[in-house]
Amino acid sequence: MGTLNINHELDDQIFNTINPLDPEEFRRQGHKIVNFLADYYQNIEQYPVCSQVNPGYLQKIVPNSAPNNPESLDKILKDVERAIIPGLTHWQSPNFFAYFPSSGSTAGFLGEMLSVGFNVVGFNWISSPAATELESIVMDWFGKMLNLPNCFLFASGGGGVLQGTTCEAMLCTIVAARDQMLRKISRENFGKLVVYASDQTHFSLKKAAHIGTTSTTSVDPLRLLCEIAKEFGIWVHIDAAYAGSACICPEFQVFLDGVENANSFSLNAHKWFFSTLDCCCLWVKDPSALTNALSTNPECLRNKATELNQVIDYKDWQIALSRRFRALKLWLVLRSYGVTNLRNLIRSHVNMAKHFEGLIATDKRFEIFVPRKFAMVCFRISPLVLNEKEVNMFNTKLVESINSCGKLYLTHGVVGGTYIIRFAIGASLTHYRHVDVAWKVIQDHANALLNQGYV
Amino acid sequence: MGTLNINHELDDQIFNTINPLDPEEFRRQGHKIVNFLADYYQNIEQYPVCSQVNPGYLQKIVPNSAPNNPESLDKILKDVERAIIPGLTHWQSPNFFAYFPSSGSTAGFLGEMLSVGFNVVGFNWISSPAATELESIVMDWFGKMLNLPNCFLFASGGGGVLQGTTCEAMLCTIVAARDQMLRKISRENFGKLVVYASDQTHFSLKKAAHIGTTSTTSVDPLRLLCEIAKEFGIWVHIDAAYAGSACICPEFQVFLDGVENANSFSLNAHKWFFSTLDCCCLWVKDPSALTNALSTNPECLRNKATELNQVIDYKDWQIALSRRFRALKLWLVLRSYGVTNLRNLIRSHVNMAKHFEGLIATDKRFEIFVPRKFAMVCFRISPLVLNEKEVNMFNTKLVESINSCGKLYLTHGVVGGTYIIRFAIGASLTHYRHVDVAWKVIQDHANALLNQGYV
Repeated sequence: MGTLNINHELDDQIFNTINPLDPEEFRRQGHKIVNFLADYYQNIEQYPVCSQVNPGYLQKIVPNSAPNNPESLDKILKDVERAIIPGLTHWQSPNFFAYFPSSGSTAGFLGEMLSVGFNVVGFNWISSPAATELESIVMDWFGKMLNLPNCFLFASGGGGVLQGTTCEAMLCTIVAARDQMLRKISRENFGKLVVYASDQTHFSLKKAAHIGTTSTTSVDPLRLLCEIAKEFGIWVHIDAAYAGSACICPEFQVFLDGVENANSFSLNAHKWFFSTLDCCCLWVKDPSALTNALSTNPECLRNKATELNQVIDYKDWQIALSRRFRALKLWLVLRSYGVTNLRNLIRSHVNMAKHFEGLIATDKRFEIFVPRKFAMVCFRISPLVLNEKEVNMFNTKLVESINSCGKLYLTHGVVGGTYIIRFAIGASLTHYRHVDVAWKVIQDHANALLNQGYV
Repeated sequence: MGTLNINHELDDQIFNTINPLDPEEFRRQGHKIVNFLADYYQNIEQYPVCSQVNPGYLQKIVPNSAPNNPESLDKILKDVERAIIPGLTHWQSPNFFAYFPSSGSTAGFLGEMLSVGFNVVGFNWISSPAATELESIVMDWFGKMLNLPNCFLFASGGGGVLQGTTCEAMLCTIVAARDQMLRKISRENFGKLVVYASDQTHFSLKKAAHIGTTSTTSVDPLRLLCEIAKEFGIWVHIDAAYAGSACICPEFQVFLDGVENANSFSLNAHKWFFSTLDCCCLWVKDPSALTNALSTNPECLRNKATELNQVIDYKDWQIALSRRFRALKLWLVLRSYGVTNLRNLIRSHVNMAKHFEGLIATDKRFEIFVPRKFAMVCFRISPLVLNEKEVNMFNTKLVESINSCGKLYLTHGVVGGTYIIRFAIGASLTHYRHVDVAWKVIQDHANALLNQGYV
């Protein structure tokens, strides 16, 4: 045991030098990061919203290998300020109107901190019962808020699961739908399987497949589609990645009319529900369709609770084995804000979008391109100002010009060949004053471009 | 605009009531959670390592719908203590020896906090250049530490990407390998494709496919396998989910001998590299094999940097579109601890495993079942004590008995019909004294069971 004792002493020296989870060091450094981030939010409007760095900027200012010796947190945080923040596109900025929002919140952040701090790997029930049980509970809470039919709740044989992203949720439901159909028509008919989707569907369809309308947030007529699908035994997945969150407000639940005939439904709580990335909520009517397709029962995970069929093992509801304790952040969001405030926050974003529409209406050079349903406005400089050939090019230039000034960030879509500007409201820090300023910036850039010879 | 003004005023009231990302509230509450978690680590040894709750425990003690009104963080944290912590299996406990470790660290936690705080969605370069560039840089840093052949680094045409889990990494590489082969043999030969794996492979193969040896952490002879595969043009993916991290130590790099002939290599930094869940590092020799299989180019993500082919868009290297800024935590781990300390920490775990082997050798009733390579020891009560029929049953009972006492948590495997006990060292708080106590507990439970009539 001589060598072992020597190792023992050397290792004690190592533990004295470095204890990667020392509680007091954790406390000291944790407070520093909280202050760093609070200051970041305080100052967030000072940064260009869309990063203005050039490709390859970072490699020029950081070493090309990891350091041999430890570096202090203070030094690292200076580098975050110097090297990382200039390369961020600030999704939490109140002037971020691009893509869809990625709405953070204090409660979501705190829930994620708890999840990261506990750092449990909740693949099955026994690996951390609270992770599984809280997830089932908040998914039922959320389902009730959305007024989803009971058949999607655990109490009635359905149930919900938190996935990372819509792509994962869709991949799972497609695999489930495929296996369910192949059991009916036999495996040799694999080649006859078809996936239907709207022509405006999200591009993740190429990686999985779903129904959705990313560019314009229009909504498909669910009742009609579901009824046809039911007739032919087709699995219907409803992807409401962005707009699903709005359906906690009764006035938006009309968009879910017919959902009782769908097989599955998903939304991204990390888009418009104050839960940080990643947090995709997926409900299914028949969990066994998922578990039949995705179950594994390796010896090393065998345990009594699973064998007695008393529990959910969420690893069988998803592609991956490992899973984070995402339910905590959703639980903190729901409890910290409460249903009434969450509805009002969603409504405030919708009201700001209406307000922005009102602003557009004051300037006849612009037009609203498609009717607004939620908190995203699709607009453009109208062909009344320019001829039809020039108008797409002009709007492209307008977006580039606005984004390169750094005062706000917005993105575009193309619908039926027409280039449209998307103005998505939903960043948690956005208030009316930001919308007003954004409109002013948009007008200023339009004026400048038009003065440069477009009229 | 009358209605709009009314909305405006109502919304101002809402914003005054609730501001989901108010910096000062964020600061105040963030500090509370830091303290809560520091106290949790301080007290972690007081809790039973494996949760002792019964299925359905949580539903009995929480409401069945989300609250309408906000609840205070203090109230929520009381519920975390009362309702969540008893339902946790404490993966960060120094007495956690089950499955594989999920090694947390202060640096990993801080990196994750920054990532959650910035909450950027880094699907392509422009959506946050720092997220993409830092990821490429730390993947090269890590690759160099592992002494991976240059062909896996960006400088030489290869490159790395952070995925969530090994299952995701394998799914990506299988899709890439499939499409690469189908381009050669044409799509109608789809049915002829075969995936080979070891008979001891990880069960995630059922969801994707790879090479690996979960139960015992044995290592396949890479050089031989890769050479055969090369001859037949077979894509080889090396899954070193657990043990890959050890290969930052030169003395373990022998296990990677032959890797230059593989196509892809992955390890989970969230297992044994002090990075919290999830963080799977995947290197590929030919990134275009991934991007050919996984690219999407929707209009709304079109941007100059992508079109000029100047940048990486990591969405094309993975299944999902959305992606978290995981590189930050790996960057903080590498810089906060430094390569020398990280190697020594890995070695200390291996030394503790050797120490545990030494303890087992002092008790002739036990045997080491397979040679130890890293920091996991596979052992059992030997058939010398009991007859071969009884021995599996006895070891099963021994594990159940130990886990139900709550003092430590370990899990089992079955290799060739033999039930083995797995003792995996790697929790960041584990020191020699925990290993010594664990051994004492194991002996006590063995004595008690043997006294109950097994001898």
